[in-house]
Amino acid sequence: MGPGPSDINPRVLQAMATPVVGHLDPEFVQIMDDIKVMTQQTFRTSNELTFTVSAPGSAGMETCLVNLLEPADEAVICIHGVFGGRMADIAERCGAKVWRVEAPWGEPIDPSQVKDALEQCSPKLVAIVHAETSTGVLQPLDEISSMTHDAGALLVVDAVTSYCGTELNVDDWGIDAIYSGTQKCLSAPPGLSPVSFSQRAVEALEQRSTKVQSWFLDLSLVKNYWAGAKRAYHHTAPVSAMFALREAYRIVLEEGLEARFLRHRDNHKLLRDGLEQRGFEFLVDEPYRLPMLNAVKLPQGVDDASTRSRLLNEFNIEVGGGLGNFAGKIWRIGLMGESCNPDHIDKLFHALDSILN
Amino acid sequence: MGPGPSDINPRVLQAMATPVVGHLDPEFVQIMDDIKVMTQQTFRTSNELTFTVSAPGSAGMETCLVNLLEPADEAVICIHGVFGGRMADIAERCGAKVWRVEAPWGEPIDPSQVKDALEQCSPKLVAIVHAETSTGVLQPLDEISSMTHDAGALLVVDAVTSYCGTELNVDDWGIDAIYSGTQKCLSAPPGLSPVSFSQRAVEALEQRSTKVQSWFLDLSLVKNYWAGAKRAYHHTAPVSAMFALREAYRIVLEEGLEARFLRHRDNHKLLRDGLEQRGFEFLVDEPYRLPMLNAVKLPQGVDDASTRSRLLNEFNIEVGGGLGNFAGKIWRIGLMGESCNPDHIDKLFHALDSILN
Repeated sequence: MGPGPSDINPRVLQAMATPVVGHLDPEFVQIMDDIKVMTQQTFRTSNELTFTVSAPGSAGMETCLVNLLEPADEAVICIHGVFGGRMADIAERCGAKVWRVEAPWGEPIDPSQVKDALEQCSPKLVAIVHAETSTGVLQPLDEISSMTHDAGALLVVDAVTSYCGTELNVDDWGIDAIYSGTQKCLSAPPGLSPVSFSQRAVEALEQRSTKVQSWFLDLSLVKNYWAGAKRAYHHTAPVSAMFALREAYRIVLEEGLEARFLRHRDNHKLLRDGLEQRGFEFLVDEPYRLPMLNAVKLPQGVDDASTRSRLLNEFNIEVGGGLGNFAGKIWRIGLMGESCNPDHIDKLFHALDSILN
Repeated sequence: MGPGPSDINPRVLQAMATPVVGHLDPEFVQIMDDIKVMTQQTFRTSNELTFTVSAPGSAGMETCLVNLLEPADEAVICIHGVFGGRMADIAERCGAKVWRVEAPWGEPIDPSQVKDALEQCSPKLVAIVHAETSTGVLQPLDEISSMTHDAGALLVVDAVTSYCGTELNVDDWGIDAIYSGTQKCLSAPPGLSPVSFSQRAVEALEQRSTKVQSWFLDLSLVKNYWAGAKRAYHHTAPVSAMFALREAYRIVLEEGLEARFLRHRDNHKLLRDGLEQRGFEFLVDEPYRLPMLNAVKLPQGVDDASTRSRLLNEFNIEVGGGLGNFAGKIWRIGLMGESCNPDHIDKLFHALDSILN
């Protein structure tokens, strides 16, 4: 019940333990195709450039930014937690001029701030985190998407924690580049990052005048391995992790996205009610709360480190601590994918009652 | 029997299917420590900065180069196959001035060429591939190491295919930065890259005047997750793949490195004799042949694609085709780790006899 990795279904673990085949074997190419289709379905996109980065979510973040930014480009980066800050760091490493739009941790970004920034610069992209894992904030994207496109910029979205756990419509919302991770609401092992680029983003790639600074993440190379008639060798794909990812996608689609979102909302309410009864207060205002990542202030007198350590050692329950200024003050309780069920919540309440009373 | 991934021991597959724990769980931190020690043992190094990149071998290559090179640095890159060429590409993306030292594919680099290059420039590093997977060449490193250090430069070595399959002594040979992959002679699933930096390389890191261009691969951040009293969160480690890696290392060390090297040599001889009897000729001169990657010229009248396709579809045997100018002309037959045994060789001979006669 931490901020990820979440529990993994035994079917996924078993798929991962299948003996490997070569990364250019026709059988594996078929698996890549299957994964691509299911990534499109779960992102709700028809983007042709939809694939999996062979590294964790932060490499997915870097993939989006290093491919879209060139030195001297301008970028508006929205920061309302750790991961927005990381995007700004990466954009600066690309040589971009970064315009920071910041909100206090625990609050969403106000679209009017983005509007102000867009009036001051001519950015190639606006980047924002949909679900801030460090604060539990769900960021509304519709207004920001419209103003980004009106300004002629691309919208880049971090959906690491929201993907497969709450409403996310890449095409309808006009998202141009999106990345996620496998270890949150998708409940596959950590280590891969699903990514999708819109046609507008692909055109921006094609119009680059410099090489992408990372060879490993350069989509002009990666796309020849993921698409096209002849699959050109780029790197050796993590074959076992891909077996696992395919099975995890199948489980998501068997449940259905809407049913999965509902399950996350229902369990969030169950957790919320019990936590509030026990003196925990939510950090984030109700309309902006993530169902799968519950950031709560510790009640007076509850020690962070020792309580989390007892939860782990005596009850085998992991909850996440606060990051940055919130260290020692909040917990981040995950209800992600396989870990999002009433049984886990009951066990947490039982453990808390036993430790805190 | 391709150029990797190799077969995986069932113990490793089973370890990988263990339910996951958090990437900051004390139990997982212990696993990272275990892996670090076994990586040191197998690299034969006491380098403190020894760790695993959470991405495949080509990301290990990029890790070494982006951390050691800054814009305007000079680098001597030795190219005698695909992977030397890739190193030059990455070094140029770092903004380095690259001096190319080239040998015909199928031959090792002549140390006198490196000497000439070192007289023409003041490189920060010399980079070279120990085992060229594209050609089957084993590159002697001793002379090149001495002259690199005499020139005040760092020696960067690609050991993706040689690691755990043939002699490799990081400390004795004066290697300053080395990377490998997990899917060759180590016989773990693809997707991770063991890396080690010498004290001299660490000093070069500390003397950088610019940020590393990749956030994901920036060792000033990665090392705080892999070492130090408090493990600082950087990215979510691929927990399942690390379970597998630990088990694969245990198997390597149970066998013993010397015994493992001998097994690779013995099976290489068995394969060589049978292939020569069947009209295949080795591409590489005898003293420079890799035991685990056998590059052989196709006998007159043997069609590349259709024969490899029959091997795969009728006999379930994968062998690698040639790359670049060697496409259609050579095969690359792997004898790596778990796949390096007389049984596999017998099956290949049986299949060849059945197809070619």
